[in-house]
Amino acid sequence: MSTTKEETIKRFTDYLAQYIALPSVSAQKKSIPETVAFLQKLITDLGGTAEVFSDWPNPVIHGEFTPAHVTADTPTILFYNHYDVQPPEPLDLWHSAPFTLTERDGKLVGRGTADCKGDLIARLCALTLYRQAHGDWPCRVKFLLEGEEEIASQHLEKYLTKYADTFAADVVVWESGSKNAREQLEITGGNKGICCIDLVATTAAEDIHSSTAAYIEGAGIRLVQALASLREVGTNRLKIKGLDAKIVPPTAREKALVAQETVDPAAIRQAHGLTRPYLTDDIAGAAAFSPTLNVAGLTGGYEGAGVKTVLPHTARAKLDIRLVPDLDPEEVADLVRQQLAANGFGDIDVQYLMGEKSYRSGLDAPLVQRITSVAETTYGTGQVELLPSSAGTGPMYLFNHYLHAPLLAFGVSYAQSGPHAPNENIRIADFHQGIDFLVNVFTDLAQAK
Amino acid sequence: MSTTKEETIKRFTDYLAQYIALPSVSAQKKSIPETVAFLQKLITDLGGTAEVFSDWPNPVIHGEFTPAHVTADTPTILFYNHYDVQPPEPLDLWHSAPFTLTERDGKLVGRGTADCKGDLIARLCALTLYRQAHGDWPCRVKFLLEGEEEIASQHLEKYLTKYADTFAADVVVWESGSKNAREQLEITGGNKGICCIDLVATTAAEDIHSSTAAYIEGAGIRLVQALASLREVGTNRLKIKGLDAKIVPPTAREKALVAQETVDPAAIRQAHGLTRPYLTDDIAGAAAFSPTLNVAGLTGGYEGAGVKTVLPHTARAKLDIRLVPDLDPEEVADLVRQQLAANGFGDIDVQYLMGEKSYRSGLDAPLVQRITSVAETTYGTGQVELLPSSAGTGPMYLFNHYLHAPLLAFGVSYAQSGPHAPNENIRIADFHQGIDFLVNVFTDLAQAK
Repeated sequence: MSTTKEETIKRFTDYLAQYIALPSVSAQKKSIPETVAFLQKLITDLGGTAEVFSDWPNPVIHGEFTPAHVTADTPTILFYNHYDVQPPEPLDLWHSAPFTLTERDGKLVGRGTADCKGDLIARLCALTLYRQAHGDWPCRVKFLLEGEEEIASQHLEKYLTKYADTFAADVVVWESGSKNAREQLEITGGNKGICCIDLVATTAAEDIHSSTAAYIEGAGIRLVQALASLREVGTNRLKIKGLDAKIVPPTAREKALVAQETVDPAAIRQAHGLTRPYLTDDIAGAAAFSPTLNVAGLTGGYEGAGVKTVLPHTARAKLDIRLVPDLDPEEVADLVRQQLAANGFGDIDVQYLMGEKSYRSGLDAPLVQRITSVAETTYGTGQVELLPSSAGTGPMYLFNHYLHAPLLAFGVSYAQSGPHAPNENIRIADFHQGIDFLVNVFTDLAQAK
Repeated sequence: MSTTKEETIKRFTDYLAQYIALPSVSAQKKSIPETVAFLQKLITDLGGTAEVFSDWPNPVIHGEFTPAHVTADTPTILFYNHYDVQPPEPLDLWHSAPFTLTERDGKLVGRGTADCKGDLIARLCALTLYRQAHGDWPCRVKFLLEGEEEIASQHLEKYLTKYADTFAADVVVWESGSKNAREQLEITGGNKGICCIDLVATTAAEDIHSSTAAYIEGAGIRLVQALASLREVGTNRLKIKGLDAKIVPPTAREKALVAQETVDPAAIRQAHGLTRPYLTDDIAGAAAFSPTLNVAGLTGGYEGAGVKTVLPHTARAKLDIRLVPDLDPEEVADLVRQQLAANGFGDIDVQYLMGEKSYRSGLDAPLVQRITSVAETTYGTGQVELLPSSAGTGPMYLFNHYLHAPLLAFGVSYAQSGPHAPNENIRIADFHQGIDFLVNVFTDLAQAK
């Protein structure tokens, strides 16, 4: 009873449909137990083992596939995925039911196809195809499946601390990834950290008639002046003393990788309708290597139409500061506090909300280099773009810190996949190509043992 | 059939009750025609003439009381009042029905008692008392009664332009006034102007993921930097070029009046729960003579709890700039535009909302000095405080501009009258003392003819 590759991919596309049908929205606490049970059964049905850890909500699944014969040299690859998804809203913008996998125009549409249920299924499918061809698993293959990625991976660090030995690996593959707008497969070796803080100015116990602005300081102007003291006008440079000294400069290889990147400033300008000059000429370099300070929100006083002559007693700004190695988020919040005090704004309350450290690699670890070489073989020369860090944030740092393994990210999405958006989708051709790539990765890793 | 003073005051208190019973809330377009009819009848019943001008909503009433014999020297006094009131909400904080005049603890409570139905009734009562004693009106007495003061006197300038001759006067008495916290009668000779503008930063067509803050300028930081460039940190000084050159410095008398004022910084600090140092040591001077720049509202990006890593494409600040002579509100908006451009913020959209010019006097016009002398006689030496300008704003400038007459403001309220607030009230003793004062004023003016 032999099974063709096509039949197997068809079977895994059906698994994907079942997986998408589970509306595992962590923010809405939906279908978490059902989804955990589905994955546990799927992994064991495929011949692996699946442990469910429920120390903290939501459960983390440890899946593992171990070959019959392992040696000290057999590598261990860990795939990180999350089984939770973003809420489907706004529902009226979907052209098909969000939790029904729908094939349309060569695409698989549904909440979670790109982020990141499609990737998990592609990985399990490739593993199964490898075993069908070779009779056993290629190496030790582990999965860490968490259920809180869309709500800031609240308990991931606790799980990684407690189960560091269980998830020990030689290389970690990140949850997902995408082809870029130039149809190159992006392989990313890091991400930025983040420090989220609120800055609150409070100058009185109550709002006051604004005629008193002649002698009473309002919270609106106070907040604005404090904020403005933290960043250079017209550039991305932060004016926070002590920050630069903690920043690890990029390596020669990291710089070289970014230098190869092709960025189209006019296309970005057009896509977002930008009206201001860029903050830097080196967009790719800034995206990979620069810390940022963003005023994500401002609120205070009268926010309606027309006029209300009120002197606000309090005003708030929401900031996110993207971090590069080796900035620590709570240390950065302290540096902001110290800088505000040094600038004469010691009265501004800096409220720490959350943070994550950054992880950045030159993608130069030997196992990572093997995988990127396989990518170039599979996708074609010049069809792979290597990035030392994405501009965004994720918990890569935690994996590197607790598992001591290098990380890389790639997946089956494309530039218009729209993760988090209505009509989230992947292209069927990318899904199949991603499976081929993973089979080739497994074949290569099997030779490493 | 002679009438005692007590009977007359009782009759006018009944008129006040009828007047308060008309819920003439201009913002809610309530009872405007009924209130106009009531006032027209009251003035004619008292022996005056009353014309109703309805060129623009709401109508303006021209009341007039002319003695049998007038000469070229007979002075004309114009009283300005408004017949509209603030909405009564929040209703649950009232201890009696807002539109039922209620006597309680020596006070007359009801919406409009302090602002400014009580003042109009006191003025008409004093006029009647004078006539009862002397057989005729003391001089030419005019009233301008408008119905839009609580909605920014939207058509007052048009009425003053069209009917400048009708309302021509030698001195104008403002709608209302109050005793201060030290129980001195305040007589105010001016008020500040105002320039209300919104500053809007727009840096893109849509909100963007905040990881792009490495190279894209967000509207939040842009707005904050623009605003901060307009005012000195820790003081009330505006950094707007060309502003100072247009400011008329206070006269020696104006300075002397303000220097006599007693301000209690600790009491103000306590009353509002201030947490910051004052912007100046000269609170009274700043209140009377300094322009201000207040950030009355800030809004942009994500304003909820927790974290949303968004780069806002637009952000808005609502500003009110209080003006002193001879600043023109639209000119000031232009100066702000020019200063922003000079500071490199020419992209910030300055949206002009509304404005009024200021009027300030040293209370030194001969007729004004006669009235302030009568006040000192009536209230007692040291019991009258003369202020060249209030820190607040009102349309005094328009009256001075179109009628070419000096203005002064006084009335029957006290420091806890709570105009605009629930349980608005005046003290019966102040009401009676205010009537006595006005009778004395009329007696004095009668001697001027």
